[in-house]
Amino acid sequence: MTTGDWSAPETEVLDAIVSGITNQQAVLATVVAVEGSAYRRPGAKMVIADDTGIGAVTAGCLEDEVLALTEQVLADGAHIERFDLTGTNDVWGLGVGCNGVVDILLEPLTVEYRPVAHAHEVAEDIAVLTVLDGERSDVEQGDHAFAHPTGAADYRGLSFETPTTDWPDELISTLTKPTAEMLAADASDSITVNWEGKTAEIFVDSIHAPPELVVFGSGHDVVPVVELAKQVGFSVTVVTFRGAADNKRFSAADRVITTSPAELHESLAFDTNTYAVVMSHNFVDDRLTLEELLATPVEYVGMVGSRERFREMQDAFAAEGHRFSASERDRIYTPAGLDLGGGTPFHIAQSIVTEITAIHHGRDPQHLTDQTGPIHARSTVTQSVDDD
Amino acid sequence: MTTGDWSAPETEVLDAIVSGITNQQAVLATVVAVEGSAYRRPGAKMVIADDTGIGAVTAGCLEDEVLALTEQVLADGAHIERFDLTGTNDVWGLGVGCNGVVDILLEPLTVEYRPVAHAHEVAEDIAVLTVLDGERSDVEQGDHAFAHPTGAADYRGLSFETPTTDWPDELISTLTKPTAEMLAADASDSITVNWEGKTAEIFVDSIHAPPELVVFGSGHDVVPVVELAKQVGFSVTVVTFRGAADNKRFSAADRVITTSPAELHESLAFDTNTYAVVMSHNFVDDRLTLEELLATPVEYVGMVGSRERFREMQDAFAAEGHRFSASERDRIYTPAGLDLGGGTPFHIAQSIVTEITAIHHGRDPQHLTDQTGPIHARSTVTQSVDDD
Repeated sequence: MTTGDWSAPETEVLDAIVSGITNQQAVLATVVAVEGSAYRRPGAKMVIADDTGIGAVTAGCLEDEVLALTEQVLADGAHIERFDLTGTNDVWGLGVGCNGVVDILLEPLTVEYRPVAHAHEVAEDIAVLTVLDGERSDVEQGDHAFAHPTGAADYRGLSFETPTTDWPDELISTLTKPTAEMLAADASDSITVNWEGKTAEIFVDSIHAPPELVVFGSGHDVVPVVELAKQVGFSVTVVTFRGAADNKRFSAADRVITTSPAELHESLAFDTNTYAVVMSHNFVDDRLTLEELLATPVEYVGMVGSRERFREMQDAFAAEGHRFSASERDRIYTPAGLDLGGGTPFHIAQSIVTEITAIHHGRDPQHLTDQTGPIHARSTVTQSVDDD
Repeated sequence: MTTGDWSAPETEVLDAIVSGITNQQAVLATVVAVEGSAYRRPGAKMVIADDTGIGAVTAGCLEDEVLALTEQVLADGAHIERFDLTGTNDVWGLGVGCNGVVDILLEPLTVEYRPVAHAHEVAEDIAVLTVLDGERSDVEQGDHAFAHPTGAADYRGLSFETPTTDWPDELISTLTKPTAEMLAADASDSITVNWEGKTAEIFVDSIHAPPELVVFGSGHDVVPVVELAKQVGFSVTVVTFRGAADNKRFSAADRVITTSPAELHESLAFDTNTYAVVMSHNFVDDRLTLEELLATPVEYVGMVGSRERFREMQDAFAAEGHRFSASERDRIYTPAGLDLGGGTPFHIAQSIVTEITAIHHGRDPQHLTDQTGPIHARSTVTQSVDDD
């Protein structure tokens, strides 16, 4: 597989699931367990269709071996493949040390996966529950349930869907709390469930809707922001005003919308998974956009520009009798971005996109080397490495 | 011009200067002064050759107008064009507000610029001095001098070269101290110089050699690191060991070298402008590479991998009687990267490349919004914006 496919952002892997379902000859590979350190964590996915893999399940160690299993999986159905690399001698190897034990769930990507495709299309979170071991129960390896959050943002309400096999009510009821907790933590891992004297090992895979980035602007400088945000998994909308933009410029974006600040809410829904960057470079447009954004639940509004410019904007708001509340001010980041230095278009875009990435993941963007304690315990950063 | 040309990293703009000199029909545009806030600062450059501009002098406001002046500049020689955009009504404009006053030096890119090309080819810093106003002196608008640092890293020694016109010794001597200071600060600006009753306004343009990133590894995961580092202006070398790599994978890199840890110093020179990321994923190779790197002046060694892995590496060093000194430990960043969260290949690359960007620019990567005081006074970050 090419590096571009291997390093495909999560949005592209989800897109590949959507198209793989209709393809009917596609296979989904999901990491369900790792022993030892690993480049990717449980929940990492690769979609294989037309002899091509999209996404990474390891640092490049196993992708070709997984590809080679496609025919077998399509013929025989789901199974878990254990790759034990603890004895690998990498001295003359592939150049990427591959160690530890990785369990990968391989399954044909069937219509059963439609709930995941639907959740992706409507930008909702979902948990996929897969039976890894059901021998001492009445569910079977490979059986799926899908859990949808119903309303509350804290996942307290979940609706379960079992498209092809019935799951006992008692099992579903036992699964509700751990599934909600794992969705809340955006975690994927296997759990052991006991009900009515039965026991099963079930993989709970949280699939959060990709974060949305809405960029207000139409200049050249919008483009590097779009490109970098797409690479790190944002779904990106560019909003231009007055129809003046050369929309071909933004081909990397998922959507380009031409509207006016006053009509924003007609074209776009903003929630707490939405991040906004305001860079129209037009003072009036930026001010009106800010006003509209503060009326939504969006928690990040990056205002590109100098502190002096923002002071002028605050004055303009004050002249209309609007003083920012503390909670409004907390949502406005100006100047947008982390202090990384450099003045080129990509430096500015890097500064902004990394700030949003850190905020989305709830991180303080300090040097990892200055922190103590294991990375994985705190996070999903997966820089631990398969060693020899 | 395309956004790709507009957002070209500094390395590509310097490459375009090198090829523009031989082209003989190329024009160099350099921002020499801005009033009000501006997207780019003095020293920002665009090279125009074959009707194409490489680099950005504004947020996209003036690039087309500058392109249209090419023929005139080639015919009439150097001049400074003042673009006064204070009255621009952007309501139906280009979508990028363009305001303030920008002075752009336009000049044919002649063999006179060879010292800049040479400095770029050998990765050395250089300052270009250009007379903006020489009316009350014996130098003329457009005259150049080039200042090379001689040895000392603090720029105390400078050697001046005036390829086409003689500059008075007294002028050169007066220029030495401010030029050294601006080179040390990586700043570009105009200064007024007085000597022997004469006075001139001279633009001192610091052109630092691009920072070098050396990535040790040959896996898929190296590629996003190379791509992001190239975008933000690093000159990138990939070092693979044992000749096992698919070097086509690294087409975005400036150089791919196959060697062994012990022979590193034969192929590569490491100085304080070099940043190293060690991600071979092979424990022995990584350890030997670290040992070699610590014997060089390189100030950043990013070790990709877990804390646990690095503890094992420390043990391996200790078994050979080597305990890291405090100054050695200060140069090792492990796990490499900023804490931005996310576990995909591009997340990991983003974490590493932004850490190196911040360190290269001497920044603490905190949120700009949490800082006080003007950005430009502290930095070259140029997020101030042309407003209306």
